[in-house]
Amino acid sequence: MASSVIREILKQASRPGMISLAGGIPAPETFPMDILEEVFLKIIKRWGSSAFQYDLTEGFVPLREAAVPYLSRYSVEASTEEIFVSSGSQGLLDSLGKILISPGDIVAVESPTYLGAIQAFNPYGPRYVEMESDENGAIPESLEEVLIKNSPKFVYMVPTFQNPTGRTIPIERRKAIADIVIRYNALLIEDDPYAALRYQGKDVPSIKSMAPDHVLYATTLSKVFAPGLRVGLFVPPSGELGNWLVKAKQGTDLHTSTLSQAMAAVYLEGGYLEKRLPLICNFYHPRLNALLEAMDEYFPPDWNWSRPEGGMFLWAEGPDRTNIFELYKKALSCNVAFVPGEYFYANSENSRQAMRLNFTNADPDTLQHAVKTLASLIVN
Amino acid sequence: MASSVIREILKQASRPGMISLAGGIPAPETFPMDILEEVFLKIIKRWGSSAFQYDLTEGFVPLREAAVPYLSRYSVEASTEEIFVSSGSQGLLDSLGKILISPGDIVAVESPTYLGAIQAFNPYGPRYVEMESDENGAIPESLEEVLIKNSPKFVYMVPTFQNPTGRTIPIERRKAIADIVIRYNALLIEDDPYAALRYQGKDVPSIKSMAPDHVLYATTLSKVFAPGLRVGLFVPPSGELGNWLVKAKQGTDLHTSTLSQAMAAVYLEGGYLEKRLPLICNFYHPRLNALLEAMDEYFPPDWNWSRPEGGMFLWAEGPDRTNIFELYKKALSCNVAFVPGEYFYANSENSRQAMRLNFTNADPDTLQHAVKTLASLIVN
Repeated sequence: MASSVIREILKQASRPGMISLAGGIPAPETFPMDILEEVFLKIIKRWGSSAFQYDLTEGFVPLREAAVPYLSRYSVEASTEEIFVSSGSQGLLDSLGKILISPGDIVAVESPTYLGAIQAFNPYGPRYVEMESDENGAIPESLEEVLIKNSPKFVYMVPTFQNPTGRTIPIERRKAIADIVIRYNALLIEDDPYAALRYQGKDVPSIKSMAPDHVLYATTLSKVFAPGLRVGLFVPPSGELGNWLVKAKQGTDLHTSTLSQAMAAVYLEGGYLEKRLPLICNFYHPRLNALLEAMDEYFPPDWNWSRPEGGMFLWAEGPDRTNIFELYKKALSCNVAFVPGEYFYANSENSRQAMRLNFTNADPDTLQHAVKTLASLIVN
Repeated sequence: MASSVIREILKQASRPGMISLAGGIPAPETFPMDILEEVFLKIIKRWGSSAFQYDLTEGFVPLREAAVPYLSRYSVEASTEEIFVSSGSQGLLDSLGKILISPGDIVAVESPTYLGAIQAFNPYGPRYVEMESDENGAIPESLEEVLIKNSPKFVYMVPTFQNPTGRTIPIERRKAIADIVIRYNALLIEDDPYAALRYQGKDVPSIKSMAPDHVLYATTLSKVFAPGLRVGLFVPPSGELGNWLVKAKQGTDLHTSTLSQAMAAVYLEGGYLEKRLPLICNFYHPRLNALLEAMDEYFPPDWNWSRPEGGMFLWAEGPDRTNIFELYKKALSCNVAFVPGEYFYANSENSRQAMRLNFTNADPDTLQHAVKTLASLIVN
């Protein structure tokens, strides 16, 4: 249901002349178009027909090997055998639902949370409990209460530059969360697609590094290479979960595109990523700055918004009297689009009068103009 | 369970020195390695970054356009909008399970049937009823009985060069099947990965062409281009099923690799397939002939086997006293591998003492040697 409303919103947002802060896609300017032919030729030379043949469900071994040092940069220490490939993060979320969720099972999520996770889990019939969150993300005491009261099958979080809020859980709170999942022997899914997109501030270690036996760490190359390849990576806790996820994936798609995986392998190990990532961050940083400056300048003082140091999204909450759908409609008629906050809540009764603003697909001037327009609609 | 046994079998079959008639993968010699760079450069030139960006769940439009004349050759008439892309056939089978199967629902399948379908459907908890079959595939009277008695959610068939039997349902029987699914308003899944791999004899029209409103037609480019790309195509009956399958896929993997789809689009529309397909068939035809000749020469008269005119598999059934697992073990010790028939039955109590022999991955001499070895183990 929410999925079709979102499709409708994104459709309206793609109308000609529209300034869309609604989407969540990387700017095509960040794709390394200039090196793709070279990468492709390396694949042909090195692996020949193997890069086009059926392959292991677990993932293309050279990619899993190349992922070892890559994940290590994000404080995830794993061997080749411990790293699995999924068809984007979405593929993993589906497999998790298939393996872990029986109808009526409880899944704990942030409030708000990533919509794609809800869409992946919903067909398996879970009920959701939401952890309370503040400007630093999920609150550990709320997590503990949920674990005690609801015994969820697993906890799902995006701790860094979260979609939709852009919030990052600070290190002390990560430690508290790690302690709690260890103490209650819970399984935490740490979905981490944005960690590489840090434009300022210091890296924060993964929760996986603090509780390796209780955390499944997932990431994707969609934001640092190209999303159309549909390549995700994940590291489950040791034990049987990884094998079960592989079995689920085998029934779902046999394996992820070998060609996509081979492209990713060369991109990671050939030094391409190292060269490209600073360019990507330098491309997005002025956009984030422009958005924050415009919010500070134009948005009324009774609104609150996140101050992300990276990622793709900013989250702005209005006072209770705000009618976000009226604002949404007015904004559309002024050719500015965003996604109303309601769609990011697993249980909509907890939702706020909020908006998700994407800043990766408009240049600084356009972002400033869009924010000015939104602010004038709020005030008048 | 069966899935892990099969994995074990394929692992043993890949031991050095083993002649494997166990697998089901295309020969890498059939991949068009010589034109891949050209195809890739066309993609970059024509679509640029769009070939690496997020795309529609329904499928990359240029591929769906290119599929219109391609499918028409196999008597499937569909417009661009009626053709959808899946992540291999497997991706579609999973979506079908997700949308159509609630635990305990009945699915009607051939006996034996394609193992990958069972693996895709099983997580959704169906019960299976098997249609009786003979050397011409599923028997219409048995289908009718199943529809009356069991009201299955849908019927699943591989009518052409079936996996595992290699059997093709003749045109008259297809018409009877089409009449029955229309009469009982049933949904038939016509899974058709092998139709293009015809080495002799005449094409048989699809059942889809005889009952378009009751048949979902599915095929894949895995056998005529490269399986590692994971690109499947399907045409649902008009109505809501297509939209539901798209929704399921959106939660499962968002969309199939855009790069894979772009490769497939250029391959289909650029005249590459036309040139390549005869080479592929000429490559496999002598292998099929060698296998059939060796069977005729060496296999004992109380065995029966299919006489496929294409595809990748031959099916041989022994008399009831045959102990196929003992034969399997003996064959392994003589460095010949096959898959025992039991694994291809949805309900194993109906299984026969049979073997599936793949002939696409060994040259004619090797096939002859393997069959001679198997025959000597049967006789002695």
